[in-house]
This record gives sequence, C-alpha cells and structure tokens, in this order.
Amino acid sequence: MLGESIPVGSYAVTFTSRLHEEHVGYAEMVERMDALVAQQPGFLGVHSVRDGLVGITISYWKDEASIAAWRAQAEHLLAQAQGRAQWYVGYTVIVSKVERSYAWPPP
Amino acid sequence: MLGESIPVGSYAVTFTSRLHEEHVGYAEMVERMDALVAQQPGFLGVHSVRDGLVGITISYWKDEASIAAWRAQAEHLLAQAQGRAQWYVGYTVIVSKVERSYAWPPP
Repeated sequence: MLGESIPVGSYAVTFTSRLHEEHVGYAEMVERMDALVAQQPGFLGVHSVRDGLVGITISYWKDEASIAAWRAQAEHLLAQAQGRAQWYVGYTVIVSKVERSYAWPPP
Repeated sequence: MLGESIPVGSYAVTFTSRLHEEHVGYAEMVERMDALVAQQPGFLGVHSVRDGLVGITISYWKDEASIAAWRAQAEHLLAQAQGRAQWYVGYTVIVSKVERSYAWPPP
C-alpha cells in the first residue's frame, strides 16, 4: 500500500524491533501472521520494512476495538510470547491516531 | 531510539517511500537531513529503516508547530523538491498523534 494515503481517524500501530542474530523460525512466523492479520476485521493495510536485524511494521486499523481483537488473537498471542522468549532483543509499540495523510504523486 | 517508548500526545510523521533504481545523491541528502532535523526545536527522535528501494522513516515531534517548521525549513524544502524531481517513485506522509506506547523489555 505504499503510495496510498490513510483514512483520517484510523489508527496506526507502529512496531519497531531488533532481532537476535539467531532467529530460527522468525520468517515463517511473519509469513503466518501476515496471512492471519489480513483476515482481521478492521484491518486496513500494512507498511513493513526490514533491514537485517532491524524492522519497522506499521499496521493500520479502523478503530481501537480492531487493534484489541488482533492483539488478543490466540495464534498471535503465542507468536508474541515466542518473540519475547526467542526472537526479539527488544521492541517498541506505538499506537497513534491518523490526523492527516497525503500521497505523492496524487492518486 | 529503538526500544524506547514515545510520549503520549506527541506526534509521529511517517514517511514511506520508494526510490527509482537510479538515485544518485540520495544518500548524501539523507545524511544532511539527519543532521539538520536533529537541530529542529521539538524534534524528539526518529526510527528509520530502508531495504533497497523501499524505506520507512518515522520522526517524532513535540507538537504540530514543530512539524510545520521542519516541513518549511529552507534546505529541507529544496530536498523535498529534488526528491520529487529525481529520487522518488512515490511516497506517503502520515501525521498521527501518539495515544500510547510501550517498550519491551521495560526500561
């Protein structure tokens, strides 16, 4: 969804993370979560970039209830726990509300 | 600032971009802008990741006035114009207000 603007009033969940050098199984988990999140009610889209061990993923959501439901999704909860136990050195989660957005070139 | 939480009520400016294959001078501009932005009043920090031609940069700001001042900074204006003329296939800018933030492991 690069190049698309994001609806005002929707929510962005920014996840910045650093992986351990050793992160067996991480790519498979990401692939599975990408498939699952796309089925979540209120999911609007995602921007994600990784450069080696450092990544930023921003997911966009219709409302706070949609974010809460995804955070508590059973398989996602397991992935979060496994992430803390095995994969992540550290991460930051930032929930923010979209005030305005524009794309260039204009659509 | 990976692993640090972001103050509630501050603003995030998310810039997602795709470069042309040819982007001579881009890295030098980024280095110059990184140095300039750090001197701007109200600048709180930045998360940035690039993987080849696709990048996400999130800068954090104290308030809307700080964002407006940076957007209109003279050398930054030139970089923006040169970006559209030479470097970017396209980009999205999203301004959002931080509602909550947490880091793991806790500080």
